[in-house]
Amino acid sequence: MKTKSIDFLAELEKRERWIASYLKSKEFEEWFYPAHLKEAVYSYVNRSGKRLRPAVLLLSCGAVGGKEEEAVPAAAAVEMFHTWTLVHDDLIDNDERRRGGLTVHAQSSKLAQQQMNYPENQAKDYGRHIAILAGDVQQGWAVSLLCDCSLKGDLDPRVTLTLIRMLESYVLNTLVSGETLDIQFSKQAIESLEPERILDMLWRKTGALYEYAAKAGAMIGLNSTHADDRRIVALSNFTSRCGTAFQLQDDILGIIGDEKQLGKPVGSDIREGKRTTIIYYAFKNATLEQKARLKSVLGNSEATREQIDQIRQLLIELGGVSETKRLAEQIIQKARTELDVLEDSSYKQLLLAWADFMIARNF
Amino acid sequence: MKTKSIDFLAELEKRERWIASYLKSKEFEEWFYPAHLKEAVYSYVNRSGKRLRPAVLLLSCGAVGGKEEEAVPAAAAVEMFHTWTLVHDDLIDNDERRRGGLTVHAQSSKLAQQQMNYPENQAKDYGRHIAILAGDVQQGWAVSLLCDCSLKGDLDPRVTLTLIRMLESYVLNTLVSGETLDIQFSKQAIESLEPERILDMLWRKTGALYEYAAKAGAMIGLNSTHADDRRIVALSNFTSRCGTAFQLQDDILGIIGDEKQLGKPVGSDIREGKRTTIIYYAFKNATLEQKARLKSVLGNSEATREQIDQIRQLLIELGGVSETKRLAEQIIQKARTELDVLEDSSYKQLLLAWADFMIARNF
Repeated sequence: MKTKSIDFLAELEKRERWIASYLKSKEFEEWFYPAHLKEAVYSYVNRSGKRLRPAVLLLSCGAVGGKEEEAVPAAAAVEMFHTWTLVHDDLIDNDERRRGGLTVHAQSSKLAQQQMNYPENQAKDYGRHIAILAGDVQQGWAVSLLCDCSLKGDLDPRVTLTLIRMLESYVLNTLVSGETLDIQFSKQAIESLEPERILDMLWRKTGALYEYAAKAGAMIGLNSTHADDRRIVALSNFTSRCGTAFQLQDDILGIIGDEKQLGKPVGSDIREGKRTTIIYYAFKNATLEQKARLKSVLGNSEATREQIDQIRQLLIELGGVSETKRLAEQIIQKARTELDVLEDSSYKQLLLAWADFMIARNF
Repeated sequence: MKTKSIDFLAELEKRERWIASYLKSKEFEEWFYPAHLKEAVYSYVNRSGKRLRPAVLLLSCGAVGGKEEEAVPAAAAVEMFHTWTLVHDDLIDNDERRRGGLTVHAQSSKLAQQQMNYPENQAKDYGRHIAILAGDVQQGWAVSLLCDCSLKGDLDPRVTLTLIRMLESYVLNTLVSGETLDIQFSKQAIESLEPERILDMLWRKTGALYEYAAKAGAMIGLNSTHADDRRIVALSNFTSRCGTAFQLQDDILGIIGDEKQLGKPVGSDIREGKRTTIIYYAFKNATLEQKARLKSVLGNSEATREQIDQIRQLLIELGGVSETKRLAEQIIQKARTELDVLEDSSYKQLLLAWADFMIARNF
């Protein structure tokens, strides 16, 4: 198991390099203008990330006998699609940091102050506007990358069109509905939370795009529009489940993670009042006094560092973190069995290691 | 000329109905969830609009001998693409009204106050967030509509992919660069304005999508990826120029238009400090005292109704409006000659009437 996991990280990094170098190629550089917009568009691309979505797309392509290199534009597309959602979500959540640097809106606002002498409030608006436009442009970039599978590569144009339509209707609408529910839930009474509704929201926010990544990889590997092929179904069910578990782990790291390793602040979920399963389980086990303490800090944008730390401790003590951890593990176990229909191969082994990594990671 | 213009309006309305009914079809209704997001996505679709972009796409298809009905999904796509840019631009410009109703962010904010009892500042944030997400979803809807030209219709999939890539890279990036320049210009000294830079910005913001609409219509009509066909080139040059003139007329209506007919407030361009050719020409003819008066109000978000009205009057008196009108007329004249390469047909006549309407309209 240990050697497998070391191999896995090397394999992951190899694919991360393919995607990063594809996205940074000269052709695209000329697309974005003026300078601040370009800087915003490339901001997260230029920082190291896990690139778990493109990785699983490539591995799924390989697992059905396809050539991974032919799926690189599609893998880059899925990464870029994920990136624009980060840019807009960071703006919506008013987060300051991502991948070890400033978020796009915070960075653009800083540029307006430093380079254009904007007063603070105007610089804030400017930063927000650039972040909206940068995300818009990145969505288009993602779609353009998919087009290239057929316009530059040999993929059947009908497969590419099917993939574009699936991404831009089913996946996009599912994902945005999840983000909207997340926003709405954060203002609803904690007592009204049900784990099923939280898991549905998490799946929408995260599972749907992971499901798509595997489906796209497998359809490209088979050069087929038959999404009901049993290997395609197995792979997309597998990543769909893993995606939800990934988000549970994200919520856990948002409470117990290390800020340096994560590259973003721990505790901001508490300040934003995110309704996670951690909150649900902790609240279930809490006394009246503890419930009152939780309520006074969750969603309180003015909460102090000390208050946040106390609530983090309380969420751990009340079993919110451990029960969420258990739930994530169960989901991954179930997901792994989906791959039984695949023949044994190094790709299958890498996919299983990928699944374990989704919840073992600490960044 | 008079009877032609009457015919033209009837032809325009006919096509408006095709597009509206296509966009409102049952299939799409199930895509959007939850309710507030759906309401936001359909908001501008449900209000009457001119639909000049889809109209010129359909007419261009007809003008090269194609069947207009086969281009309806693409025409709806161009309208939807335009719609998401309106939703995001209205948010960026902080405009309150569009097409006779509240803008998407203002409407969503109102819903949060009325239905969810959000306090005002939280409702404002909620409205902004819904508007960001609604625009995102609409961009995806536009792309999905294009896919249907081949997935449901008979268009060569390579033509569709070429059109998608052109829209999602060249057109999108040009358009967003125009919006970014518009934002940046509004904070730059009026003295630094040059008409060429303003016209370039206007073309980016508006001309590029019009250029695309004609190109797409002609490529669909010919079922061809050969964008260098002389008819395709002529039609896209024609609409490219007309698009810039359209934006000049928009700027004029922003000063002298009737709020009721326009469905949006007159004078908000002044409050936002938009750098238009109207400002450029007026400033050129202004005395030092008049320049100072202009500067004190342009871009002043706290300007009173009375101040705005005085500046509107001044911009007219100094020839800013009349010189911009003359410029728009010159551009349309030049654009009309592009169509000389087309054989005479009722479509060509409608296209010429369409060009006249672009700057004759008062809404």
